[in-house]
Parts: sequence; C-alpha cells; structure tokens
Amino acid sequence: MSEHDDHAPARGAYGGGDGGTAVAELPPVAIQVTSEISIASQPPKKGEACTMVILGAGGDLTRRKLMPALFHLQCDGLLDPEFAILGVAREPLDDESFRRAMYEAVKASDEPNGAGKIDEDQWRQFAPRLGYVSGDLSDRRTYANLIGRLERVEQQREENDGRLFYLAIPPSIDSTVIRELSQSGVAPRVDTPEGRPWVRVIVEKPFGRSLDSARALNAVVERAFAEHQVYRIDHYLGKETVQNILVLRFANSIFEPVWNRSHVHHVQITAAETVGVEHRAGYYEEAGVVRDMFQNHLLQLLALTAMEPPVAFRADAVRDEKVKVLNAIRPIAPEEMHTYSVRGQYGPGTIDGERVVGYREEPRVNPQSQTPTYAALRLMIDNWRWQGVPFFLRSGKRMPRRVTEIAIRFRRPPTRMFSRGDGTLAPNVLAIRIQPDEGISLCFEIKVPGIGVRTTSAQMDFSYDRAFGGSKHSAYETLLLDAMVGDATLFTRRDGVEAAWRVVDPFIAAWESRPATHFPNYAAGTWGPEVANDFIARDGASWRTP
Amino acid sequence: MSEHDDHAPARGAYGGGDGGTAVAELPPVAIQVTSEISIASQPPKKGEACTMVILGAGGDLTRRKLMPALFHLQCDGLLDPEFAILGVAREPLDDESFRRAMYEAVKASDEPNGAGKIDEDQWRQFAPRLGYVSGDLSDRRTYANLIGRLERVEQQREENDGRLFYLAIPPSIDSTVIRELSQSGVAPRVDTPEGRPWVRVIVEKPFGRSLDSARALNAVVERAFAEHQVYRIDHYLGKETVQNILVLRFANSIFEPVWNRSHVHHVQITAAETVGVEHRAGYYEEAGVVRDMFQNHLLQLLALTAMEPPVAFRADAVRDEKVKVLNAIRPIAPEEMHTYSVRGQYGPGTIDGERVVGYREEPRVNPQSQTPTYAALRLMIDNWRWQGVPFFLRSGKRMPRRVTEIAIRFRRPPTRMFSRGDGTLAPNVLAIRIQPDEGISLCFEIKVPGIGVRTTSAQMDFSYDRAFGGSKHSAYETLLLDAMVGDATLFTRRDGVEAAWRVVDPFIAAWESRPATHFPNYAAGTWGPEVANDFIARDGASWRTP
Repeated sequence: MSEHDDHAPARGAYGGGDGGTAVAELPPVAIQVTSEISIASQPPKKGEACTMVILGAGGDLTRRKLMPALFHLQCDGLLDPEFAILGVAREPLDDESFRRAMYEAVKASDEPNGAGKIDEDQWRQFAPRLGYVSGDLSDRRTYANLIGRLERVEQQREENDGRLFYLAIPPSIDSTVIRELSQSGVAPRVDTPEGRPWVRVIVEKPFGRSLDSARALNAVVERAFAEHQVYRIDHYLGKETVQNILVLRFANSIFEPVWNRSHVHHVQITAAETVGVEHRAGYYEEAGVVRDMFQNHLLQLLALTAMEPPVAFRADAVRDEKVKVLNAIRPIAPEEMHTYSVRGQYGPGTIDGERVVGYREEPRVNPQSQTPTYAALRLMIDNWRWQGVPFFLRSGKRMPRRVTEIAIRFRRPPTRMFSRGDGTLAPNVLAIRIQPDEGISLCFEIKVPGIGVRTTSAQMDFSYDRAFGGSKHSAYETLLLDAMVGDATLFTRRDGVEAAWRVVDPFIAAWESRPATHFPNYAAGTWGPEVANDFIARDGASWRTP
Repeated sequence: MSEHDDHAPARGAYGGGDGGTAVAELPPVAIQVTSEISIASQPPKKGEACTMVILGAGGDLTRRKLMPALFHLQCDGLLDPEFAILGVAREPLDDESFRRAMYEAVKASDEPNGAGKIDEDQWRQFAPRLGYVSGDLSDRRTYANLIGRLERVEQQREENDGRLFYLAIPPSIDSTVIRELSQSGVAPRVDTPEGRPWVRVIVEKPFGRSLDSARALNAVVERAFAEHQVYRIDHYLGKETVQNILVLRFANSIFEPVWNRSHVHHVQITAAETVGVEHRAGYYEEAGVVRDMFQNHLLQLLALTAMEPPVAFRADAVRDEKVKVLNAIRPIAPEEMHTYSVRGQYGPGTIDGERVVGYREEPRVNPQSQTPTYAALRLMIDNWRWQGVPFFLRSGKRMPRRVTEIAIRFRRPPTRMFSRGDGTLAPNVLAIRIQPDEGISLCFEIKVPGIGVRTTSAQMDFSYDRAFGGSKHSAYETLLLDAMVGDATLFTRRDGVEAAWRVVDPFIAAWESRPATHFPNYAAGTWGPEVANDFIARDGASWRTP
C-alpha cells in the first residue's frame, strides 16, 4: 500500500548474490543477544591461480605479517591449489632454506596459527608453494632470473590467472623497483581490469613524504602501470572494525539520519600508542607523527566516517567518495595553523608503573630533536553534511593506553526536561573501537532507578570478541586475498593518497619551518600536552579518555 | 562561535535543580560499561506530613501491594515522621489487630523487603503509624467515625499537610464512596493545587467499562472534587521502564530525529501473559482483554511512545501531550473493523510442558463464552509525525511467555550495498522491555568477521537489572510517593481516560454485537490466532517473538 511502503524491497526480493561473485546460500541469520551471534558460513572469495612475488622477502614485514597471513589463508582453504609464492631478496638462499626460514617465521609469529605452534599437515601442503630467487633488487639480472622462474611456475598451471607483486621494501627503492619490474617485462602494463593474465602491484606505505614526493612516486607508478593494477596498502583498512564503519553506516537506517551537522557536535578520532619510538628512530626522526599516523591511518578513518554513501560497495565508488570528502577539508593558511593544530613531543615519564626516557633520550634520536611525537588536528569539512562540525584527530606515542577509536559526539537535546545531579545532560556518544577490543558502544541517558525522574549515563556495548570469539583473520589476510581477486575497495587510489598529503602538508611545513622551542611538552604516560585541552575546549568539547 | 553552537548550554550552565524541588548536589556520574553504572544518590522527593486513608483496607490490593510499598518507603526513609495510615474496612479489627494483619501481609508479600523476611526495627517504627476504622463504606456513620479519627491524628501534628484517600474498592461502589467522602466532609473540595491542607483521592482502575460509564463516573468525581485532587492510578505507569520511555526519548538527542514516519516502519506493543483467567473469571467474563489491558496499559504505552515532546516534565504538560496523541488515533467505522483488529480466545493447550484447559473450561466461565482473551489492534495516528505508521497492539492470556515490550521497527536502508546470506538486510529495531528484565536493546547490522563484507544482525543490550542490580522500588511506591507530594505526572487525567475509551469502544461494541463463532481460535501456549499473522503481514510486518 502506498501510504506504507518500506524503503527497500520486501524480504526475499533479492535471490542470490550481487556484484559478480558467487554467494553461497546461507540460512537466515538469527537475531541474538550480544554474546550469541550466529555467524554466516565461509565467505565467497577464494584466491585465484596466480603467483605472488614478494620483493624484499628477507624483511620483517614478510616474516611477521605476510607469510603468517598467507599460511592462514592456506589453513582456511582460501588459496587456489596452484597458487605459488616467490620470495626475492639479497640473501643467498635456495627454495629449501627459504621454506625453513618461513616455517620458523610463521611459527614465531603472534598471528593466528602462529605463536609457537603450527599445523604441520597444512605446512606440508603450503611449503611446496614457496620458491626463492636470490638477487639485488637494483640489479637487472635479478629480474631476468625472476622472469625465468615465474614462467616455469606458470607453465605448470592449467590456467594462469596472474602475477601479484608485493613491494616489501624500503620506500627509498620503490621507484627503482617499480621501473625495473616494468622495464624488465616481469610486470607488464595491462590495459583493462578484465585483461588476463592480470598483473597487480601492492605498494606499501609510506607513499612519499609530502604531496610533491607522492606525486613523483605516483608518476613513476603511472609510467609503469595502469592505475587499476596498483594496490596501495594500508593495513588499517583491512581491520574488521574499519570495514565495519561502512556497514554500520549504510546497512542500518537509524544512524545515517543523525550523521550530519544537524545532529553531530563533533567527531574525535584517536590513535594512541603506548610504545615510544622503539627501533624505528631513524625513520621516525625524519617522519614524525603526522606522516606516520595522520596522512594514512587517521585520514582514512576520517574519510570512512565522513564520506557520503557510495553508489555501491565497489572499489571505485567507495574511493570516489573518500577522495571527495578529503578534498572538502578546509585548507589552512600558515598564519592560522595554531588554531587548527597542537604538536607535542614526549619527555620522560611513567607508563604502567615503569619509568621511561623522553624522546630526545631515545637511542639514535637527536638530543635537540624537533620531531613531533604527538599531534592534534582540528579539521573542518566544508560540505553540506559537515559544515561547522570539527573533526578532532589526535595521535601520540607514549600515551597511557594503546587505543584507536572514532567517537561521534552528538549535540545535546534542545531542551532539558529532566533534572540530573550534575546539572546537565550528558550528550550521546557513538564510539567505534578499532583496537584493541574491536566493537561499538552507544552512550545514552537513562532514568536512574528509583523514585523521582533523574537521569544518568548508560552504555550499550557491542564487542566483536564477545560476539564472535575474537578476530580470526589478520588485516593482511583480508587485503592479500582482496588483491588476489582484484578487489581494490580497501586500497588507496592515487588521488586518495595525494588528497591526504594535501591535507597534512601545510601542518608539516609550518612545523618544520618554526622550531618547537617548547619540546618536550608532555610526559610519557599522559594524554599529550596540556595545551591540547584548551585547544579542544574552544569548541565546547573535551578529549575522551578511551 | 556561531558556526558551532550546541543545542543546549555548555556543561555547568545550570547550577542547582529545577522545577521547584530541591536537588541535592551530586558528583558527576561516570560513564561506565553496562554492568557498572554509577547511581546518583537518593532522589529529592520525600512524603509530606499527611494521612493516607485506605478505603477497602481488608482487600488483596492493600495486603499485596499498598502496605508492602508503604513499608518500603519507611525503610528508605521517605516517609515524613508524622505520616499516618488509616485503614477502613468492614472487618471488626482494632488498631492492634490491623497492625498484626499488615505485618503478616508485608512479610508474606513478594515485594522488596517482603518474601518471608521483614526488618523488625523498621516495623517497630512503622507500626505506630497504622490505625484502623471499622465500618461499612456505604454507611454514613463510617465516615463520621473516620472524620473523628482523622482529626485526632491531625491535631497531634505540628503542621498538617493533607489527606490522601486511596479507593482500594470494587469499581461498583466507586461512585458511592466518592459521594460519601465528599458529602461527609471527610474529603472536601480544594480549589487550587496550592491550597493547604490538601485533599487527594487515588482512584483505582478500571475507570468505567465504556466511554459512557467512564463519563458518568468522572461526572460524579467532578461534582465532589477539583480535577487536580484526583489521581487515577494505573500501576504500569510507575514501572521504571515506562518512565524511562520519556527519558530515552527526550534526554537523548539521537532517537528523536528518527522517531517519526520518515524512519519508523511500524511499532509493536505486546503485553503477553502466560496465566489464564485465574480466580478473576467473574470480572474477566464481563471485561475481556480490551477493557482489561488495552484501555489502560497498552494505550498508555502507545501514548508515551508516540506523544510529542511535552513543554516540561510536569503533570499537565505530559498529560496534555498524551491526550493529544490518543485523540489523533483514527476512528474506525464498524464495517472496517476487521482490517484493524483480530480477536481470540484460548482453547486447551500446553504451557511449559503442562496441559492447561481452555478458557471456556475455566471455573465460573460460561461454556459458550464470547469473551476475547486475545486482541490485536492496528491503530493509525493521523498526525504529522505518524501518518501512515501502523501501531500494532496485542495482548493475550495463555501466551508462551510473560512479556511486555515496545518495539520500534525502523524502515530498511534505502539501498542495499552489502550482501547478506539470506538476501536482505534485517531492519533496525529498538526494543524497550517493560517486563520482565526491564531494559533496552538495539538490533542493528554489522559485518560478519572474516574475509569479504557480509552482514549479520547483532544486538546491543542494556539491562536495568545488570546495571543497577534489580528494581529497588515497586511501581506502587513510586506512585504513592508521587501522590503524597502532589506530582500527578504518572496519573491519568479525566480527558485521558475518556480519550482511551473513545479508542477502544468501537472495537468492544463491534465484537459484542457480533458473536465469535470461531472461538476458541488459539491454543494455550501459542502466540494467538493464526489470522493475526496475516493481519500484520498486510503491512509488510511480522510479529516479534519477544
């Protein structure tokens, strides 16, 4: 009847899957209490019959993240029987010694199936997939060897789907390797996403260290490959809760109506680390917190939180909207930088009862270092949805807790109908916890039980862990499988990388041109510099203590 | 700054309390997880120095509800030191034997502080408050005795605040007692709510058995008292979660924006009982389910759910809005009754593994009884907020579970961006559980963990019990204290009673004029007649199984 139509077709109107991948028929999922959610059966994706080439296979990333992720995909039966992996690195290994090294790496990793134990049966099936090509990545002969090895692997396949290159290398040699991959013919340009066999290249962050250098790197990439071949990886985007931001927003009807300037007071995105600079001082001294955390992770979280609904959950539709919202962030003039940002550097302090040194006392850090280890930015998005709503982004090292969360703080009700002990109603807050303890919580006012109508804050909570028994997949597994099947939704497109640099460049430039005479300005184990509190208070807000 | 003002003044802008009652200064209430909510300290209300006269003190209501509630107010220190209680009934008791009977009643009750145990210290302080006047309520001499006794009590007080009469009597003698109370001078008319000493009369439901009889009773009341003196009690309105409906709606900013026809698909209000007619066959044969449950409880829940925001949380402001929304319910013509209602009567069946007889086999029930024990109504509210949104109300005896809940079922998202095993997204549902296990739950879609973006339903849940350790006050305590301090917000006003009868009268009239040849039409232990499923399905909905 016309007076009462639903916004979507009635149950059952959609038969099978969508978007081209075959969707298995599942039983209806029962609605359950938090701790007893029924889980649908295995996902429909499965890797294709391709070869993954890891360039820089001798590094940490390969041992700690990539190989455990690949092995876990094996255990889950998500690898094609003919899928193969070729490691390329300088170390003089052969296939057998590479397999042994990877066995030890997977066993030692703290990823699922690691941590000292390993499914030996699965490993016996996995090991023959591994091959090794020894060589220097700046040496053309390495690529000649690689191409020979690749062709032998591919000739053994009934049908060859493609080649997936993973650049697990220092950013300084990205350009060289990309050029060599292309010019050697190892990784040829493929004009259309449908072209077979496909060639895809996964590039690890950081993508440049400024807008200019990112553009230069992208230009190198563009000369070598079509954009659809390039998968810029930020493992944050593979996390369950990050993907869940879009599900939460667009698979539900109750959040989107309040997800705008009429109802949201401000948004806080926090990524706090307890660690200091660790063994990364060399990199960190050059990078600082804005390059390390904001240009990639935090701006990606902002984009997912603030973007308009995409036409579909497809790579280009999603990335179009992300870029749009990044491009809508208000440019900041150098002279007003101080009203839009706070920088900090940690001094000595105490974390978990343990004394720790200040940043300038860390090994290999300049004792007069100007590098910020904390930043808070106030970003304004000048579009119809968000005009006037500040997005506060903060990240720091040596904070009291390791936590990443997005908090949507709603406006207060327009009138105050009920009394409350402390004289005001607490505003509603929807918090999306990215890590640890991935989940969602909604803070709202309820009546205090008993006589008289007074209110207090309560929280409804949803924990992924409690509901689903912990994450079963690492972010890298999700992303590697996506790359194998050609789904670039969770990877960053060229324009996205450049849009993010365009946002952070002015802050970096302003800070690098003005010495931070006040560093260090927060003690390790605190939530950042004191001035950050005044900074957010100017908008009638205060930092959460997540 | 003007681009970013909050809807309400910043924290701290309101100093003390509001609305005239003194509000104790409380520490800020910490935001906690569900199970650890900080509770504000004692509420500000405290009973006044008045006398409560219970007319019908020999009955069940007094023993099982009123006296335990009063004693609990004593234990909580909420009674004025000079507060007194006079029981009036036909039984030839004196003060001492009345006190003994009440001691046994409180001890035996399953209300807080009852269930076989009693705080003897508190009882020693409580007992002297109790007095007894023996007499027939249709006999004028009873009132003469009562007035003498009342005056003696009042003369002992330093300052006398008022008299509170509770009509714990069968509805058939309501009019008589009201007339006698008035004409004897026991309960004089008081012109303004501020007049001292005050006189208030609590009238128990049912308020009539049709619009006409309710009007007649109200006319009797009006001749005796000013409307502000009359407290029509429906204990449902004293329940925590019922009061919490208004807090939830109006102390939060995220629900109200979606609380309307643009976002709500339909509303379901269920009050299911597992019991049969029990010892109430005499009453129930005459009443039936619509008079027993809909005219009062269910329409009150509908009114609280659907009403516009009141100007303030004050008696007349709240009641104005409740009456407005009841008056906006679409009148149903007799010939279209079948598209707006389903009636049912239970036959034999099984509940909790136990065989039970059908309604017509119950003691003192007519073997050809036409009395409905189940009804489902589809009410349309013709106003700007709710036009086109059906409100489904259902109640029945001998259902599989005892449960009362309000479920707001939202529309589906306008587009379907994510795949789901069963081919469609589940709609969002906000459920307010009135009993048992008072609480709130929100059903929403989340990502199924693992590779691939698929959704499933999850539930965030808030339980009053888990958060606050169970209800500490009965509904009667809340309401008695409210009456003592002159807060009529949770009581029904004359126009509210009549508006509710105006809604249900046509259904009752239609059913009483057409024999129910299909009775019994549902088995005990089921969720009502089969036809009720088709009834709700016509709106693209289905009954919840709460």
